[in-house]
Amino acid sequence: MKAAVLFEYEQPVQTVDVELMDPKPGEVLIKIAAAGVCHSDLHVIKADLPLPVPIILGHEGAGVVEAVGEGVTRVQPGDHVVLSWVPECGECYFCKISRYDMCDTAAALAISGAQRDGTTRFSLNGEDVHQFSMTGTFAEYTTVPQESAIPIRKDVPLELAALVGCGVMTGVGAVINTAKVRPGSSVVVIGAGGVGLNVIQGAALAGAEKIIAVDLVDGKLSLARTFGATHTINAKEKDVVMSVLDYTDQLGAEYAFEVIGRPETIAQAYNCLRKTGTAVVVGVAPPNAEVSINAFSIPSQAKTLTGTWYGQANPRVDLPRLLDLYKAGKLKLDELMSKSYDLSQINEAFQDMVDGKVARGIIKF
Amino acid sequence: MKAAVLFEYEQPVQTVDVELMDPKPGEVLIKIAAAGVCHSDLHVIKADLPLPVPIILGHEGAGVVEAVGEGVTRVQPGDHVVLSWVPECGECYFCKISRYDMCDTAAALAISGAQRDGTTRFSLNGEDVHQFSMTGTFAEYTTVPQESAIPIRKDVPLELAALVGCGVMTGVGAVINTAKVRPGSSVVVIGAGGVGLNVIQGAALAGAEKIIAVDLVDGKLSLARTFGATHTINAKEKDVVMSVLDYTDQLGAEYAFEVIGRPETIAQAYNCLRKTGTAVVVGVAPPNAEVSINAFSIPSQAKTLTGTWYGQANPRVDLPRLLDLYKAGKLKLDELMSKSYDLSQINEAFQDMVDGKVARGIIKF
Repeated sequence: MKAAVLFEYEQPVQTVDVELMDPKPGEVLIKIAAAGVCHSDLHVIKADLPLPVPIILGHEGAGVVEAVGEGVTRVQPGDHVVLSWVPECGECYFCKISRYDMCDTAAALAISGAQRDGTTRFSLNGEDVHQFSMTGTFAEYTTVPQESAIPIRKDVPLELAALVGCGVMTGVGAVINTAKVRPGSSVVVIGAGGVGLNVIQGAALAGAEKIIAVDLVDGKLSLARTFGATHTINAKEKDVVMSVLDYTDQLGAEYAFEVIGRPETIAQAYNCLRKTGTAVVVGVAPPNAEVSINAFSIPSQAKTLTGTWYGQANPRVDLPRLLDLYKAGKLKLDELMSKSYDLSQINEAFQDMVDGKVARGIIKF
Repeated sequence: MKAAVLFEYEQPVQTVDVELMDPKPGEVLIKIAAAGVCHSDLHVIKADLPLPVPIILGHEGAGVVEAVGEGVTRVQPGDHVVLSWVPECGECYFCKISRYDMCDTAAALAISGAQRDGTTRFSLNGEDVHQFSMTGTFAEYTTVPQESAIPIRKDVPLELAALVGCGVMTGVGAVINTAKVRPGSSVVVIGAGGVGLNVIQGAALAGAEKIIAVDLVDGKLSLARTFGATHTINAKEKDVVMSVLDYTDQLGAEYAFEVIGRPETIAQAYNCLRKTGTAVVVGVAPPNAEVSINAFSIPSQAKTLTGTWYGQANPRVDLPRLLDLYKAGKLKLDELMSKSYDLSQINEAFQDMVDGKVARGIIKF
């Protein structure tokens, strides 16, 4: 079977034949139908998120259950599944408080590149090949913990279902699970890439009245309007904070989402807010980046700065719900999938993402 | 009539005779019975909070209504009142959303040192004398907007009632209005001064299970235990974050309150939290101080950083409620009032506060 493997940081990914062992207890073998290409995969390539190599990237995907290991109860062969890259352990403090997005075990394993028992399922010439976040969807087949295999309805094309597994969940969830945006409110979204567009459509879903998209690329701002932005700001041309004030009766926005992962834009999101407003950081910054916030403003303006990870998902509830919203015509998925690629074109897919040519590129199998 | 006036920054306050005009429409003349001495008054002296001089300091106080101006409906002569230093305008956006603590007009006027119409009520040899936050309680009489005069029950000594007007409201409100601490939770309070002790007793009121007080002075930590702290950390002797981890099953605290106003301790509060925890900044930092937060941690740990101003008070509801809690034996006020002074001893009262000798000093008239 073929998989796209990163052998060395900063180098192109190589599509090679790998070996995959049978699923162990609690694990599920999935035939991948489609996998989304995400900036987080790129962060691994660039070593901003330094995972062990060789590694199979890809953590957004959907497919069909091919086989299940001993004791698997959540899915059976033939089920359509979308992959969750935060398989909850069910036993840590955060799982006990139903904050599966913060599962300690999943976080540790995501970084290890291994499965729950600390070993890998893939190999190449006898050498272990790791998986990104226990998933590794840039492969014809993959083995994941059953908690990563979320069963879904069968009437949604799998290449669209794949999208909800990461980008859509992260963006929409930031709005509806973390910020809990209220109808009629004003929202700024800084960064209109694959996730940012989903923050925008999440805000539209939540009934926000003003949705102000900020980016440097006019093409992305135009796409932002398709997803529900009511105002756009090209940050190369206009002062973001001043423009937001102009669009909000000089008050500032009630909510601001940062979907890039840079200290300057995180501070900008905070500064776009009216007093009592909430900034939600979605973008993942490099590990040592520091954001600077005026200390006096924290009590005197009573703003809130918080963050969201995987859209604060409860995957078994939220992922099927997103697909229901799609079927009801309330969530755009077709418009997100700008382009599809063969697995062998994976490096081209990364380049298109870097160049801002696609909302989301999909590898089809 | 006598008042304690700051004529020049960094200089002692002088107790002098001043003139006070009759209340204008919507204003109330109050005979002050007691006034609390607060760090914010000191910030004005030090020019950290640069208000126009000459100015009558003091913004925490209680007294009896002596006379009312035209159109005053909320109080009448003889009423006991506690002073609120955030008299809501009722017309700005924040008043409309019932966030009186954030009233735009009150914030602007607090800095101006004037009353609503932009003029002052006090004078000395024909020169205008300003009031701190439209109150100016270090004076035998003062004139304030009726929104600053909160009527209260008459069976609480006015020197105790004075305390709820600032320090108690700010501390307890940070817990019950802003953080909404839940019973059974773990709370860190950094800074066990006059306001910090009220955060601690607010946490106790809210049913927190672990209340970890942090300070540099053992005497304050001992007082912290009186107000409900279950654990104490002298930050000169122990690493705060490590100690908090030890006291919280290595998870970190669910809530952390910073009650000093320094960038380093704000960052420390944030770092004491478990994932999903909430840090509330109560301390007022100098205007240009910047706090540095790890950008990667914001989404990946989903902590919340927020602030609280005047305990997010709705004064007409919250100040009487605090006195009800006192009468019910659930809120400590007697233990807060460490020492009382004559108005002429005001500089001694400031010095005792700086030296950490008192939880709260009270000027009695």
